[in-house]
Amino acid sequence: MTRVYNFSAGPAVLPKAVLREAADEMLDYQGCGMSVMEMSHRSSAFKSIIQEAEQDLRDLAGIPDNYRVLFLQGGGSTQFAMVPMNLMRGAAGNPGHADYIVSGTWSKKALAEAQRFGDARCIATSADTNFDRVPDMANIQVNADADYLYICMNETVNGNVLRELPDAQGKPLVADMSSCFLSEPIDVERYGLIFAGAQKNVGPAGVTIVIVRDDLISDTDLPGVPTMMQYRTHADAGSLYNTPPCYAIYICGKVFKWLKAQGGLAGMQKVNQAKAQVLYEYIDKSELFRGFVRPQDRSLMNVTFTAGEALDGEFVAAAKAAGFENLKGHRSVGGLRASIYNAMPIGGVQALVEFMREFEAQHSCSSQSM
Amino acid sequence: MTRVYNFSAGPAVLPKAVLREAADEMLDYQGCGMSVMEMSHRSSAFKSIIQEAEQDLRDLAGIPDNYRVLFLQGGGSTQFAMVPMNLMRGAAGNPGHADYIVSGTWSKKALAEAQRFGDARCIATSADTNFDRVPDMANIQVNADADYLYICMNETVNGNVLRELPDAQGKPLVADMSSCFLSEPIDVERYGLIFAGAQKNVGPAGVTIVIVRDDLISDTDLPGVPTMMQYRTHADAGSLYNTPPCYAIYICGKVFKWLKAQGGLAGMQKVNQAKAQVLYEYIDKSELFRGFVRPQDRSLMNVTFTAGEALDGEFVAAAKAAGFENLKGHRSVGGLRASIYNAMPIGGVQALVEFMREFEAQHSCSSQSM
Repeated sequence: MTRVYNFSAGPAVLPKAVLREAADEMLDYQGCGMSVMEMSHRSSAFKSIIQEAEQDLRDLAGIPDNYRVLFLQGGGSTQFAMVPMNLMRGAAGNPGHADYIVSGTWSKKALAEAQRFGDARCIATSADTNFDRVPDMANIQVNADADYLYICMNETVNGNVLRELPDAQGKPLVADMSSCFLSEPIDVERYGLIFAGAQKNVGPAGVTIVIVRDDLISDTDLPGVPTMMQYRTHADAGSLYNTPPCYAIYICGKVFKWLKAQGGLAGMQKVNQAKAQVLYEYIDKSELFRGFVRPQDRSLMNVTFTAGEALDGEFVAAAKAAGFENLKGHRSVGGLRASIYNAMPIGGVQALVEFMREFEAQHSCSSQSM
Repeated sequence: MTRVYNFSAGPAVLPKAVLREAADEMLDYQGCGMSVMEMSHRSSAFKSIIQEAEQDLRDLAGIPDNYRVLFLQGGGSTQFAMVPMNLMRGAAGNPGHADYIVSGTWSKKALAEAQRFGDARCIATSADTNFDRVPDMANIQVNADADYLYICMNETVNGNVLRELPDAQGKPLVADMSSCFLSEPIDVERYGLIFAGAQKNVGPAGVTIVIVRDDLISDTDLPGVPTMMQYRTHADAGSLYNTPPCYAIYICGKVFKWLKAQGGLAGMQKVNQAKAQVLYEYIDKSELFRGFVRPQDRSLMNVTFTAGEALDGEFVAAAKAAGFENLKGHRSVGGLRASIYNAMPIGGVQALVEFMREFEAQHSCSSQSM
């Protein structure tokens, strides 16, 4: 068995130790005589799994008691609707309002979805420079009637990250953290709601983690909102209103334990900074490769770059042949992208840089000989 | 490693051969160098997995070309909202209408959810006999304005099954088949829409299969309905609008292949009939155990019975100690329940009956000695 270096933007590489344990336990979880996939979600064995996962996540991220942790389905795309449906609360008969900062593909999509349910406005964007930076947020004006301010912390497609949070001016800050969740410490209290699809840093596709402050969960039924789309439904039932994605939650739980063993989020941040530095430093020195995002806004998770339009395709193919998978940029922006989430070892990034160096050498030789 | 006999109503027992293969492939799927959990959903490897799963399902169930197969998230509970949100189509500004047959816990829940989105009416129910049978449907009148007629084919909690379909009187028939899906042949053309949470007969929790006739999928955006809740969104994108629950789909695909190897749905039906017969025959002869549902309406999948209120708890505990898990009835109805889905071998049912026989003998002895 040869494992490749997998730079996929998600679903993405998982810790090998986690996969090994999952394989070992597949037919018999800790002497239960069955797989976690076969377990009733109401069984004491599964309740231990989900409760332990929640507790480990609370420990890792320092989640205060007045925040609820929900394990939901439907990915970030479902949260794009659930956030406005639950949080945009117009007075009787009137639409609600919300302000969005648009820093890339995903915040743009979230804004468009919110506009289906109320008055959602873009108050800052970097669309004019094709999202090669985060928007200038120094002088943003959050509208007085806004029910919340929305950001996408790390734009997976474009490769930028918000290093500083905007001043939410007293409004709840809602953050899509899908592609940077648990990659560095989080100050949960600065947010009203955080959500993250698991399939980047945390686990397999099929589970979405929502961390939401108690006061943002409605006490009463929200008319016109499907029961399954109300945070209240899942908060009241401890994520067991209906059958949750049990196996995906179990894998997330294992990843949380793995993260603890790596020194928690502070430990992970150090490794992630080191990994990103190796790659960006090389790109900045290279005469062939060029980074897409301006240095101060570069994501530690999704490194977007190019070898020039003529060579990008060749690079992806050559890299694949050498055991480096999924280096193609998102189809909407082209170019190259290396996603280097928590589970990507620094050795993988070093090997990639080595490969890029060879590729560059070959291509400057061949251009000399022409 | 000792595997127990797992009679859970869902998540439920899966074929051992499927779990073994999944364990073997956990770190390296067919030489890809990565787990299916780590694969981009846009990769050719994953596209093969989902397309093959769909094709195998089409072969098994004989799904005509004018039906779409969707792999969604959110379980049956999400379908309870998606069905009315997509299919109850009132003329401009007016609510839509739908008729429901209420044969147990789940159809009752589905009706309540539909009533949030329009005029959903119960036109037949067996609530008055506590769902110990299916409603009398000989003389049902489907309303002329109904957009569809809704049934729950097999009521998991109550243990009854619709052996004959109601006359939908020209309206699309919508069926929740969660707990009997692929347990016997289906005549798909008799339905407008079929849905099934996978976690009973088909795979792990976290994926819901929807089979829907083309003409029931709206051509245009449905205002007020979240993008993720529109069938159109997923039909247009071949279930890849956003990241699907990849690993769960992969396991379903393996179960489909396993079903083909068992002789398909006709082969499965024979085994399921034989299994149910072994259990019901013993229950009917027993002086201790008593079935809950009248014989002609009994589910082949969920066998509901009781040893009397005083003994049910003792039976569950004794059975567990002997390696028979999850025999407790649903908390809402009490009693006992043995779910004997496709992957439960007949040997498991025979062993359970043997255990029940011993339990009965012990309890008649001890009552004699008192």
